[in-house]
Amino acid sequence: MIIVADNIQITNDTIDNAIKIMDPTPIQGMVVKCEKAGAGAIDINSGPLGRDAEKKISFLVEAVQAATDLPILIDTANPVAMEAGLKVSKKPVIINGFSLEPEKLEAILPLARKYETDIIGFLLYPDSHVPPDRTDRLNIAVELLEAVQKAGIDKERLIIDPIVAPVAWENGRFQNLEILHVIRLLPELLDFPARTIAGLSNLTTGSGYWDRKRLLEKAYLPMLAESGLTMVLLNIFHSETVRTANACGAFLNSKIFSWEEL
Amino acid sequence: MIIVADNIQITNDTIDNAIKIMDPTPIQGMVVKCEKAGAGAIDINSGPLGRDAEKKISFLVEAVQAATDLPILIDTANPVAMEAGLKVSKKPVIINGFSLEPEKLEAILPLARKYETDIIGFLLYPDSHVPPDRTDRLNIAVELLEAVQKAGIDKERLIIDPIVAPVAWENGRFQNLEILHVIRLLPELLDFPARTIAGLSNLTTGSGYWDRKRLLEKAYLPMLAESGLTMVLLNIFHSETVRTANACGAFLNSKIFSWEEL
Repeated sequence: MIIVADNIQITNDTIDNAIKIMDPTPIQGMVVKCEKAGAGAIDINSGPLGRDAEKKISFLVEAVQAATDLPILIDTANPVAMEAGLKVSKKPVIINGFSLEPEKLEAILPLARKYETDIIGFLLYPDSHVPPDRTDRLNIAVELLEAVQKAGIDKERLIIDPIVAPVAWENGRFQNLEILHVIRLLPELLDFPARTIAGLSNLTTGSGYWDRKRLLEKAYLPMLAESGLTMVLLNIFHSETVRTANACGAFLNSKIFSWEEL
Repeated sequence: MIIVADNIQITNDTIDNAIKIMDPTPIQGMVVKCEKAGAGAIDINSGPLGRDAEKKISFLVEAVQAATDLPILIDTANPVAMEAGLKVSKKPVIINGFSLEPEKLEAILPLARKYETDIIGFLLYPDSHVPPDRTDRLNIAVELLEAVQKAGIDKERLIIDPIVAPVAWENGRFQNLEILHVIRLLPELLDFPARTIAGLSNLTTGSGYWDRKRLLEKAYLPMLAESGLTMVLLNIFHSETVRTANACGAFLNSKIFSWEEL
């Protein structure tokens, strides 16, 4: 399981300020910390970026890639920003992401072909609502795959994000169990070992209950891992969650167990 | 998932000494602590007990039951001790347990009928070796069920223990993943919602690496829980492991989520 750091996001004041004054230093400092903490990839969650989107995303991508060789994920719903980021990227990049929403199919998906990148597909309805159960999620996965192939993109480029639900949602428990089944069923349904990604921070929202939030992360992550999840997106500075991810490897990797890997 | 405390065991010096001098106080003190820490049942692991086995197990069962109303598990391979314990028990008790080993089929299994108790069946070969994969484990489960029914015991009395493997075993990882599949497959295979129990302390043996051992427990437990495990046997004083078990409930229970349950 590859750990993707979700720390480089515009909602973080350090990142937001660095973008405002175009100073790469704080961003690079954080990227180096992320890599040191065990990140296997860096998600750049820039938000829509508004005015000067192209300039800002270019700055962000270049700042991050000057500090690391890790693959990056460009995480924006703004197709103009997405393309600008892809254009300046000099290292492996994953588009994060598209859905059946018409605007995304038209403006985001083709970029994966144009820039020959992997692309994450969200298991959401075209109106961005969350499907109620595994059946609808699996149907959407098939539609995402069809869209990818119709766009002339190699099916192996598709990475499925089943969209983790907040536990506090009325049916959050049920949704998150359904997601585990979806991850297990996808390879057979799609007839190739489709990769998957899940955002662990989605589990909980709002402030407070920090310790209990970490506890929920640490309980759900092994379930995701055992289901076959390929990549997990999380706050890499939650060190006990990262240790739990490594401990999952002790069960799921095929090599001989060693205490040193923990 | 019911948490069964495995703390009352003869390998614990406090317990061993208390038995030697027939002083129930230290045992009862520990039982009270176990219940306070979240135990839903107490495993009494007396070992074979040797001389005066009947007297010692009677003392142990009475000592524990004077301190708690929780169900107890009597955990001994000695059929004489087992029967003595069952005879004095005044509260719900589970026999832990039997296997296809001829001596256990003859001397332990019939006690579940005689004393109308639940009984744990180990997924082991008749020679007590561990089966190599899920297929053999499932075959053994069917044989255990047949033995239970042949002994005139209600099938719902059977609780299956798939026998967690030490991670340091050459194929420990594979075995423990197979166990998850076995837990998932049992209800359909046996055609009733057969209960299951797993001993988390089996994961690691020997001394040292305490922190990493807890980490492995906390990573494997959610996988077991999500597979549908009914009862987990663990050291109830590993408080972070117990908290993880409760956090699993936040995903697996059907009631509305509340932060208070964590």
